[in-house]
Amino acid sequence: MNKSIAVIGAGSWGTALAISLSGKGHSVRIWDVNQEHLKELAENRENKRYLPDIKFDDHLEIAYTVEEAVRDAEIVLFSAPAQHFRSALDGAIPYLTPEMVLVNVAKGIEQKTLMRLSEIAFEKLPNAKYVVLSGPSHAEEVGRGLPTTLVAASIDVALAEYIQDVFMTDWLRVYTNTDIIGVELGGALKNIIALGAGISDGMGYGDNAKAAMMTRGITEIARLGVTLGAHESTFSGLTGIGDLIVTCTSMHSRNRRCGIMIGEGMKPSEATKKVGMVVEGMFTTEAAYQLALKVGVEMPITEQIYNVINEKIDAREAVTSLMTRQKKHEKEDVFRKS
Amino acid sequence: MNKSIAVIGAGSWGTALAISLSGKGHSVRIWDVNQEHLKELAENRENKRYLPDIKFDDHLEIAYTVEEAVRDAEIVLFSAPAQHFRSALDGAIPYLTPEMVLVNVAKGIEQKTLMRLSEIAFEKLPNAKYVVLSGPSHAEEVGRGLPTTLVAASIDVALAEYIQDVFMTDWLRVYTNTDIIGVELGGALKNIIALGAGISDGMGYGDNAKAAMMTRGITEIARLGVTLGAHESTFSGLTGIGDLIVTCTSMHSRNRRCGIMIGEGMKPSEATKKVGMVVEGMFTTEAAYQLALKVGVEMPITEQIYNVINEKIDAREAVTSLMTRQKKHEKEDVFRKS
Repeated sequence: MNKSIAVIGAGSWGTALAISLSGKGHSVRIWDVNQEHLKELAENRENKRYLPDIKFDDHLEIAYTVEEAVRDAEIVLFSAPAQHFRSALDGAIPYLTPEMVLVNVAKGIEQKTLMRLSEIAFEKLPNAKYVVLSGPSHAEEVGRGLPTTLVAASIDVALAEYIQDVFMTDWLRVYTNTDIIGVELGGALKNIIALGAGISDGMGYGDNAKAAMMTRGITEIARLGVTLGAHESTFSGLTGIGDLIVTCTSMHSRNRRCGIMIGEGMKPSEATKKVGMVVEGMFTTEAAYQLALKVGVEMPITEQIYNVINEKIDAREAVTSLMTRQKKHEKEDVFRKS
Repeated sequence: MNKSIAVIGAGSWGTALAISLSGKGHSVRIWDVNQEHLKELAENRENKRYLPDIKFDDHLEIAYTVEEAVRDAEIVLFSAPAQHFRSALDGAIPYLTPEMVLVNVAKGIEQKTLMRLSEIAFEKLPNAKYVVLSGPSHAEEVGRGLPTTLVAASIDVALAEYIQDVFMTDWLRVYTNTDIIGVELGGALKNIIALGAGISDGMGYGDNAKAAMMTRGITEIARLGVTLGAHESTFSGLTGIGDLIVTCTSMHSRNRRCGIMIGEGMKPSEATKKVGMVVEGMFTTEAAYQLALKVGVEMPITEQIYNVINEKIDAREAVTSLMTRQKKHEKEDVFRKS
């Protein structure tokens, strides 16, 4: 059952999955928009930039064109950043056939359209065999073969089970789920709370405050998600609270690092500049805030983070506002549908 | 609305809450079974043993007998360890009146009877005004006035709201809940997963593995809880996943420290000895394992931790068994009732 697999995007996550798949005996070809980077991969037989010290095996080939990567592939895995998914897909479309299974591991919402990434895919390819792969997974740990769980989500459960079979190893356990909306929203919106967790840490608050923000944070993300058509239970699973836990407790997260600087008193605009790369959570907060207003869902934590990063109030006022607002029953405002 | 409050048990948590309550203007009397400890509290006007460097204010008095603490109290707060709750309650009963509101902050299941602590209370006092107070709360952080959230749970929502009013401050936010079974089970059973998180850390596994264990762990705890009459949603709240997050990511947890030593290869019996105090999770794992068998609920993580601490298999075999068991849909086995 060895498969022919194309990987589009050679960042840390695409590379880690390519290594895992080729280690299982699949034939994998990896391509990236950056030709210089591809040459380095071929020369070094490792990804020194994004996943150093983990060697490629013989089943992992470097492709210098999209066509070369995708031709004859049974599975095409997209690991471009969320904001570049649309162009990565456009680049691949001429070479895709209807039989190919498309797997996307990017997490985010497209900034200019507020679309989930599967919405982009289905708009272009209404009959796509499309699977989202998400979960609590630092790439370095997957590259090193440390135990990790993922979720393969598709509206077609047989397709999710097919990807489960292809990816699963003794240390990479894959669950299936059919709630593609919930899986995509959990992976994208967790970065709001990572930003907030960083702000809390930066202000010198402790584990109690951070655990409360994470718990109440996933609750309000779920509230928005359910209103947008997701299942409540997905947010208490691996792609919801699981991914949130990994992101909020790790220094690998750019969102958390940016939040820490804001919490320490730096202006949000300066903190973003200092991180130097895109801080996905800054945009995701804006998107969630707008979506919540539009569909009429209460998201008090998101609202306060939005106020802080837009310099409307300072972080200390935001915390006071959250701690002292109207007293609540723990679940009264959670799921309007339940 | 200042109240007269007795605190039974002067460990770190009882002391932290007594300080918080007296700081809000309530009249608080704290008692402990250890008279030597009480004398030190009175002399130092702080709890040097369990909560050093935080001074008592004038509203916090030391009581040398239970009667002196409880007499004329409107609220009696029990902060004895779970295995001593029965005797603490027995000691107070002669002085309790039906009007007094009883608040319990201990977390655990009584070892010899497998009873939840509220079951003990209602067996002795069927009409008790009884509230459980739980949530993600290191005592040191509450003592220092760092932002913290708690849940006041009672079958009588008005009673929970009364306790919410009494305890809430600008930095201590209290939610209410009526699911007393779920709140008690979440607080008690989280220690199984803290033990497991420690074992994972001790084996050198990473954040992916730990996040997966926490997420799947609360899922199986919820599964047992729902079968025992709790509400599913309570386990995704502050007293469920919130408390689990605080416990599994902190070195304050004796359960996690014990797990780390087991993960590093120490025999479980030696690790327990080395921790030197009761490792509540060792017992809770046994209790949950027996309960799960009895009611027919699948708890794969608990089962493997049970096997490891009873030296039936080693930790590495347990992980392999968890990662390679039958492939699953993420939610297929979660809530039989839903």
